[in-house]
Formats: sequence, structure tokens, C-alpha cells
Amino acid sequence: MELDELTRRVFSRIFVELEASGRHVHVTKEQAQILFGHGLTPNRPLSQPGQYLANERVTVMGPKGEFRKVAVLGPERKEAQVEISLTDGRTLGIQPPVRLSGSVKDSPGATLVGPCGVVKLEQGVIAAQRHIHMTPNDAARFGVKDKQVVRLHTYTDRPVVFEDVVVRVNPDFDTFVHLDYDEANACGFRAGDLGRILP
Amino acid sequence: MELDELTRRVFSRIFVELEASGRHVHVTKEQAQILFGHGLTPNRPLSQPGQYLANERVTVMGPKGEFRKVAVLGPERKEAQVEISLTDGRTLGIQPPVRLSGSVKDSPGATLVGPCGVVKLEQGVIAAQRHIHMTPNDAARFGVKDKQVVRLHTYTDRPVVFEDVVVRVNPDFDTFVHLDYDEANACGFRAGDLGRILP
Repeated sequence: MELDELTRRVFSRIFVELEASGRHVHVTKEQAQILFGHGLTPNRPLSQPGQYLANERVTVMGPKGEFRKVAVLGPERKEAQVEISLTDGRTLGIQPPVRLSGSVKDSPGATLVGPCGVVKLEQGVIAAQRHIHMTPNDAARFGVKDKQVVRLHTYTDRPVVFEDVVVRVNPDFDTFVHLDYDEANACGFRAGDLGRILP
Repeated sequence: MELDELTRRVFSRIFVELEASGRHVHVTKEQAQILFGHGLTPNRPLSQPGQYLANERVTVMGPKGEFRKVAVLGPERKEAQVEISLTDGRTLGIQPPVRLSGSVKDSPGATLVGPCGVVKLEQGVIAAQRHIHMTPNDAARFGVKDKQVVRLHTYTDRPVVFEDVVVRVNPDFDTFVHLDYDEANACGFRAGDLGRILP
């Protein structure tokens, strides 16, 4: 085993790489048709296998403001979801609840505007609860289970311990901590920074 | 001693109230003259004795964007300072270093625009390092000293432990934790929330 490989193995038993997620939108197939006149088309793959940044972009409108050219992630989902930070919420005039992805019941709505049409969402705007995507192998290695809530220390410019970090285990995942931009900036995150799950 | 008073005393030995500071600007007397045609005039007092929110507001311009109607805090200082979050920095196109207030050497500049004139700052844009303002009495009670770096647990919607929190002791201070809006949103801060200095 080469030193690089050994280093990598030791590192992967201690540290988890951090990623910051900017504001983004998930839409259904029907909504993609309305907004863009066709289904989503992949621009580049994301860290989670099968997920991609679409070529298509939308304007997200709230009662107080809007964001243009917001990223749309594919593939299409069964239900629309708009993931923003609490800071974004102030700009839009929307107070998103802090939720896990997919949990949009009774969340506030927003209006999506595409080049071909408009979709009014009755619900779907959330701030993503910080979470760790993990492969089953990595979960076993770290001794954590799906849905377990852990504390995570960040090795960043402005170090913090994030509490209430939810572990999500799935063979389709790659192992990454997902923070929103409020959290990323609060800890001074830079690309490649690492975190450690506290015992 | 009434129960309320007892509760207050016990609380004040354990908890410190959190405050979120929005983006704001400090200017010199000379700069206030250029920007507004007169010195700063108080609008309302801030939590720190003698400090006030001024009636006057400025536009802060960076290479990529601007913020209008930015709060100016008085009284005037010996050197200008623009305190923004890292999120704000992305909007402006400025990367502020994380510094204690007053430490602006070699920080980036910005342009301030007032109703009467323009001031180009060569330096002065920082992201405020999270800190705790403390009276000497409270510092003695918590067993901390001026410039000591502590860890602070937040009792908030999205609890975190902030590391590298600097204690600043001064008889002119009231005791409050000061966070910027990235930090406030990352921990889900609401007015009145409390933190605890960890041993």
C-alpha cells in the first residue's frame, strides 16, 4: 500500500468532507414541461451519484423579493422543493422551516418562473437541515446509523460544532456533509474542508 | 428576594444573551461631513452604552454589487470600518477577513456613497469575529478575562457550539454575544435566545 493510499484510508476513518449547497429547486416532470417546454437536461453531475445540475434555471419569487437564475437539480422528483437559506428567506419574504429534504408538508410556497411558464407552489420552500450523506460502508466505519443525529466539528477558518446533524445512509450516496451557505459562511468553509463526527 | 429576581440572578450566572449584528458602517467625523454635510445624529441607542444607530444611511459599493441604506453607527470613530457578513461579501465582490472590530490593517476597501458625497475607503471592510461584550463584573462571574477565547453553546433552533469566540471586557459594555447574520442564521437565532460559555 502506498503512503498516499494509507493516508487516504486513515483520513476517511476520521474525517468527512464538507460541501456547501447553494439555493436550488427540484421540480416534477409536469412542472419542467410548464416552465421549460421540455424535461430537465443535465449540465454537470453533482457529488451524489445520478444527481445533476440542469441546464435549465428558474426565477424564484416571494412576496418581498426574487432570485433569478436559480439552479435546478435533476432528475425530476415526485414533488417540487425549493431549498434556500434563512438569509435567502429574508430577501424573499418567506420563512422556511428547517427540514430534511423531501419533508415539505405545510411549508410555505413560492412562485417559479421559467422561460415558458409559471408554476405557483402551494408548499415546498424549506431550509435544508444540515445532514451527512453516507454510504453503508462509511456508516459502519463511523459507527452511525441512518437518521442518527450527531455532532460535527468543522476544521475550518471559523471552527464550530454543528449539533443536530442528521446522518442519511444510502448505497446511492457518496459521503459528504451538506451545509447551507449560512452554515458554510458561519464556519468559514472553503472547498475541501473537513469535519469530524464527535463521539 | 422575589422569585423573578432569583431566576434572573441564576440565569445571569449561566447564560449570556445573543445578539445578531447586521451589516453596518463606522465613519470618521471628516467622512460624516463629506457624506452627509454634518456629523452623525442619533436615531436610537444600541445595547452597548453610548453607541447609537444614526439617522444617516449610506450605500456601500463593491466591485460586484452594492447595498443601499446601510446602517451607520455612532458616535464617529478615528477610522472607518465596514462590517459585513461573508454572504454580503459575495454580493459586493469583496472578501473580508474575519477580524475583531478596530483591526482593519490591510483589509479590503469599499466605496461609501451618501447624499452629499462619496468616500473611497482604501481599507476597512471586515467580517466581525464573533465575540462577547462583557462587563468586568460578569467577566469575574464567568471566570473569563479580556481577550480570552471561549467556546459558546447556543440554545437556539439549530444549536451549535461556536469556537474561537473572543471575550472583550470593558466597563462601558453590556454583556451580550455578538454574532453576524451568517452565524445567527446558521444557529437559527431568534431575539432573546441565550448561549452558554463552555468550561
